[in-house]
Amino acid sequence: MNEKNATHSHWKELNERQPALRVMPMPADLNPAGDVFGGWIMAMVDVAGSIAARRRARSRVVTVAVNSFVFKQPVSVGDLVSFYSTVEKVGRTSITVDVEVYVERNPENLVALKVTEASVTYVALDHHGKKRTIPDD
Amino acid sequence: MNEKNATHSHWKELNERQPALRVMPMPADLNPAGDVFGGWIMAMVDVAGSIAARRRARSRVVTVAVNSFVFKQPVSVGDLVSFYSTVEKVGRTSITVDVEVYVERNPENLVALKVTEASVTYVALDHHGKKRTIPDD
Amino acid sequence: MNEKNATHSHWKELNERQPALRVMPMPADLNPAGDVFGGWIMAMVDVAGSIAARRRARSRVVTVAVNSFVFKQPVSVGDLVSFYSTVEKVGRTSITVDVEVYVERNPENLVALKVTEASVTYVALDHHGKKRTIPDD
Amino acid sequence: MNEKNATHSHWKELNERQPALRVMPMPADLNPAGDVFGGWIMAMVDVAGSIAARRRARSRVVTVAVNSFVFKQPVSVGDLVSFYSTVEKVGRTSITVDVEVYVERNPENLVALKVTEASVTYVALDHHGKKRTIPDD
Amino acid sequence: MNEKNATHSHWKELNERQPALRVMPMPADLNPAGDVFGGWIMAMVDVAGSIAARRRARSRVVTVAVNSFVFKQPVSVGDLVSFYSTVEKVGRTSITVDVEVYVERNPENLVALKVTEASVTYVALDHHGKKRTIPDD
Amino acid sequence: MNEKNATHSHWKELNERQPALRVMPMPADLNPAGDVFGGWIMAMVDVAGSIAARRRARSRVVTVAVNSFVFKQPVSVGDLVSFYSTVEKVGRTSITVDVEVYVERNPENLVALKVTEASVTYVALDHHGKKRTIPDD
Repeated sequence: MNEKNATHSHWKELNERQPALRVMPMPADLNPAGDVFGGWIMAMVDVAGSIAARRRARSRVVTVAVNSFVFKQPVSVGDLVSFYSTVEKVGRTSITVDVEVYVERNPENLVALKVTEASVTYVALDHHGKKRTIPDD
Repeated sequence: MNEKNATHSHWKELNERQPALRVMPMPADLNPAGDVFGGWIMAMVDVAGSIAARRRARSRVVTVAVNSFVFKQPVSVGDLVSFYSTVEKVGRTSITVDVEVYVERNPENLVALKVTEASVTYVALDHHGKKRTIPDD
Repeated sequence: MNEKNATHSHWKELNERQPALRVMPMPADLNPAGDVFGGWIMAMVDVAGSIAARRRARSRVVTVAVNSFVFKQPVSVGDLVSFYSTVEKVGRTSITVDVEVYVERNPENLVALKVTEASVTYVALDHHGKKRTIPDD
Repeated sequence: MNEKNATHSHWKELNERQPALRVMPMPADLNPAGDVFGGWIMAMVDVAGSIAARRRARSRVVTVAVNSFVFKQPVSVGDLVSFYSTVEKVGRTSITVDVEVYVERNPENLVALKVTEASVTYVALDHHGKKRTIPDD
Repeated sequence: MNEKNATHSHWKELNERQPALRVMPMPADLNPAGDVFGGWIMAMVDVAGSIAARRRARSRVVTVAVNSFVFKQPVSVGDLVSFYSTVEKVGRTSITVDVEVYVERNPENLVALKVTEASVTYVALDHHGKKRTIPDD
Repeated sequence: MNEKNATHSHWKELNERQPALRVMPMPADLNPAGDVFGGWIMAMVDVAGSIAARRRARSRVVTVAVNSFVFKQPVSVGDLVSFYSTVEKVGRTSITVDVEVYVERNPENLVALKVTEASVTYVALDHHGKKRTIPDD
């Protein structure tokens, strides 16, 4: 698929799927090299994944592992960043979520880019902070 | 419309419209009374409106006025907050945007609530920071 | 009134009235265009108005509406920003406050400018978070 | 002077002197023990003193030393904190400023307390970041 | 190895190895459940790994992938958190770093715990932001 | 001692002593002149000193005074900043700590510099927030 088509399909994605989070990074989130600090993206991915996990678990959840995390493109100030979460696997007490991150850039000639992809695992907790069996869907 | 129906229609809204922003407030955003700080919501509404305005203007924009802003319900930590922006009026150099804010609350038994509604006016700026005529749609 | 006189009367104002808040914005408060983020000013105005409202109510208060908010001039890093609050109207449970915002700029040749003006309404709350009748002054 | 009189004179001070800064700390500024983090107060005192120093120097200034800093009382969330700066000594390139910090507490029955007192020395810098002779007053 | 010995060997580690970072999380870094926000730990691990990578590369670096990340124990406010970074693999332009995270907890009866372990890959960049060959050690 | 030797002895220090804190400042910590905000350094020194004080006191502590604080060199974004704390004096309920601050700068050709030196006094508190006698070592 050539780049124009790739961008086209990204737009369809951005317009039809509900994001878990959609955020505008601010200058305070920049690293010294002028791009958005990688740790800021990691922190947002963690929250975005937890939103899908807590909906599925119907309880609060905590992060237990990041299985993979790939930074494909830097994120710049002024980009609008959307995080899409998909539950990939449900165990007895754990939920693994894929998080895809896209940016919308440049108001004069909008471009959509996939910037990051990650897989994060959460466990469901009860009110006492103990692991809890995840209910059937 | 009774409350059950209201919630039902809110869900439809939340699932079908694309939010300008969707954010999870953190404990640092709490006011001393334990609710999310009103100023945090104002700041996010300002950004959410500017996203719709800059898309329409195809340039950067600055805020010139808040026309109205009503806080209907407090926002709590753990709420997922979605901001929906609609361009209401386009002048020669200005754009007025309505921003509606909904929360999704309580992972054990999800509820949707409209918490805030606002109208904000922006002006389009060129690269030199001067007012700029908004192009036809 | 010409600009020189305007500045002169602004100084008198700044030197004789007690501000509700007086704050120095930091680089973290900048928007991507290099001015202080409009949302930062909104958040500070909300706090500045609440200080006058809680003094009058003699209880804690929450924001219920922004009636108007006009950004006249951008605020820059290095400006010292003063917020002046005046109680404009007291209802049974609500208080409307006008907030005027001035900056002092440029240490080498000080200038005073009015940058923002807003009207915000708060309601008084008792210890249980219920609306509370405002006592006589 | 008994405590009642002390509070009375503090009020007079708070109502008649112009603060260099006046700020409302937020929950994010709390230390783990529930009081406002000492470092937050130090950082604000540093800015408050620099405002008086740059006005006197008519240039930007940097901090070179804290001569003394006494924390008399803890600061709590919900306190309104005022910083008063007085130029104490002007050298060839340096300016020493005393900063006194008061809080206004408890909207139901307002109390004024002096919480901190400090002495900080700054040097004046020119546009190249070199020390600069301070002009006559 | 029993738990007492494990703690003993952790102390030896903490006292003899130089940490890449050592930080005290603040209440603003708490998640709504009262533990330190997982994203805060991810962000710090990213910085800690980059410090080892930039020393080895003798240039600036950017994060390209998180290979694994395991949260073993929650981190609490008041814990002193140390991040230890070890270069595990050096490719032509990339460096993979293992980051181990320990906390020192409870001033009355100090305990050392390993809380997180991660592997992160960085690439070296030249002054133009292009990939750069890593020099021999 | 000439500058080369000074740097050499700084490195020995940095490699053999355990820091109380080691932190990488971010762009959000910059003052308007482009250096790390003096108040950020003060806040970190306060925490670094309190870590040594609470270890010695075996209880929580609060800051009561800064006895001296000298800024020798500015700190820049990208510097890795290490804080070394030494207990200098133990009174009945108070502990005075010296804090020395070094930076490691410039990945291409590492340099070590002493940037700040301070003396801070803390008092030990019991669980009720009352002063507490410091136990023998």
